[in-house]
Amino acid sequence: MTVTRFAVDLGVLPVALDLGGTFVFALSGAAAGVKHRLDVFGALVLALVAASSGGMVRDVLIGAVPPAALVDWRYLAVSLLAGAVVLLWHSAVERLRNPVQLFDAVGLALFAVSGAHKALAFHVGPLPAALLGMLSGIGGGIVRDLLVAEVPTVLRAEIYAVAALAGAAVVVLGSALGVPSSLATAAGALLCFGLRFMALRRGWRLPVAGEQEPSADAAKTRWRA
Amino acid sequence: MTVTRFAVDLGVLPVALDLGGTFVFALSGAAAGVKHRLDVFGALVLALVAASSGGMVRDVLIGAVPPAALVDWRYLAVSLLAGAVVLLWHSAVERLRNPVQLFDAVGLALFAVSGAHKALAFHVGPLPAALLGMLSGIGGGIVRDLLVAEVPTVLRAEIYAVAALAGAAVVVLGSALGVPSSLATAAGALLCFGLRFMALRRGWRLPVAGEQEPSADAAKTRWRA
Amino acid sequence: MTVTRFAVDLGVLPVALDLGGTFVFALSGAAAGVKHRLDVFGALVLALVAASSGGMVRDVLIGAVPPAALVDWRYLAVSLLAGAVVLLWHSAVERLRNPVQLFDAVGLALFAVSGAHKALAFHVGPLPAALLGMLSGIGGGIVRDLLVAEVPTVLRAEIYAVAALAGAAVVVLGSALGVPSSLATAAGALLCFGLRFMALRRGWRLPVAGEQEPSADAAKTRWRA
Repeated sequence: MTVTRFAVDLGVLPVALDLGGTFVFALSGAAAGVKHRLDVFGALVLALVAASSGGMVRDVLIGAVPPAALVDWRYLAVSLLAGAVVLLWHSAVERLRNPVQLFDAVGLALFAVSGAHKALAFHVGPLPAALLGMLSGIGGGIVRDLLVAEVPTVLRAEIYAVAALAGAAVVVLGSALGVPSSLATAAGALLCFGLRFMALRRGWRLPVAGEQEPSADAAKTRWRA
Repeated sequence: MTVTRFAVDLGVLPVALDLGGTFVFALSGAAAGVKHRLDVFGALVLALVAASSGGMVRDVLIGAVPPAALVDWRYLAVSLLAGAVVLLWHSAVERLRNPVQLFDAVGLALFAVSGAHKALAFHVGPLPAALLGMLSGIGGGIVRDLLVAEVPTVLRAEIYAVAALAGAAVVVLGSALGVPSSLATAAGALLCFGLRFMALRRGWRLPVAGEQEPSADAAKTRWRA
Repeated sequence: MTVTRFAVDLGVLPVALDLGGTFVFALSGAAAGVKHRLDVFGALVLALVAASSGGMVRDVLIGAVPPAALVDWRYLAVSLLAGAVVLLWHSAVERLRNPVQLFDAVGLALFAVSGAHKALAFHVGPLPAALLGMLSGIGGGIVRDLLVAEVPTVLRAEIYAVAALAGAAVVVLGSALGVPSSLATAAGALLCFGLRFMALRRGWRLPVAGEQEPSADAAKTRWRA
């Protein structure tokens, strides 16, 4: 039933990006587990869920079932490895400034571009491909935050979904214009990560509906908390 | 891969209802964003998510992937338009009695009937078609409420899922009995909206398990709050 | 479109297990509804959602759409029956020690083995089949807990996802080794339920990341609360 679907050859680059995104999202999930005092297995489950939700939603939406995260053992291995890294060196991880958000920003960028690539490989049009890239990027963080009863970063935040959409759009545009795939991918991932990182570090944010003025100080405080 | 699936012709009516439901659910999402003091982009994301979750779940469950909400640019445009309306006129929106629930009731009715239509067009049986109509109706509100950390209306509430199921069932029955599609659709949507609206305004509700008597006053107070 | 997919014959045993799991997960959902003071219909919705989420996620991930929970009326009937049982005899149910978790443990075991069976019937490989069994088992409880704004058991807990994975793995191994299906199924379900039950009753748990020592007393207290 699913054999013909897997004839779609993604090439090495998107799979490597996808596995990289899986690794850092799993880091963010395990770090969120440590922050919320989950037990070892709960933190590993959160690592797995954060790492695979975005890609699984993308694969279901383009009809690539069973999703790569279930079929390809490397996704599971990479997630468990990331979980083990955080659990073994959690004191080092906790010394980072907001480790959950930092790993999340890297994963957002990698999944946004790999998601756009995979959607294009499944012959989805340019607008849906960009939206699917965005969804792949933001999906894991949404599920991770929901499970630990936090309002997801994508809603609270500073530039987030818009950064993922920008990164995915660069890949889609590059493909339409015939730019070499690796160049467009690098540009998209850097744009997404750069936007998100500056939003986090500099407190870049959009005005709250109904407020007079955005408070950059408040955002910075939240980020350091 | 997905080409044959799109050969299913839904006709103008279900698509118009679906876009209408998308618009009002996006209004409810943006209004919930304003209520929870999200920033502009967070409110737009919530508008998008509330508007597209129900239909995306329905499309995935009947195998219509990629879902219409991703493939057809009008869904995105209508959602962003609704978000912009709320953000520009939020003081007017906030003067409405409980705007989130009011828009939600309209969206519930429109999605329940359009969802039942789409399921029938994909040759799903009568019971699953009614259940899919209900799911399309309640899905967006559930995801919207989860994301802002509220217990979803469908659980807290007064008549809600049962109203969506009734509306969808009218469409399915009408199709089985050969009633003209537009008539059954109008009757189903009115029944669903009417039940939900009366439940909201009159405090109609079902007894709480374990309580002696339902408190209509309490429900009314909640609705006005 | 979906006709050929349903040519997959699951046999009597997995369907019976699936319906059994549906019944007990619906009991757990309705009991959670009573515990959180939902009204009658809210408790029934929670029963339905807890009973069908895990299986629907599994069916979507293996491409078995529309999912059995929508297509086969027995799933709906069994869920509503379980909801009615809890609502009619809720005082008896509340006299049980932690009824939500007890029913949840039985459902976890039944869905883990039926999920692994169904995945194997759809020609999924051994690792994804075991993971899909685990997902089928844990899915319903995650959605149930999210909807009533609790951190899901799978994250808070003692042995949970690992029990489901162990039960599903026994079914997959049994199938690979040619062990009679009913024997492997019984062994897998008993292993999963046994692990989970002992974790609940004896306070078996894994260490919290960053703590010196797991506190078995704390776990026992939580379970009795």
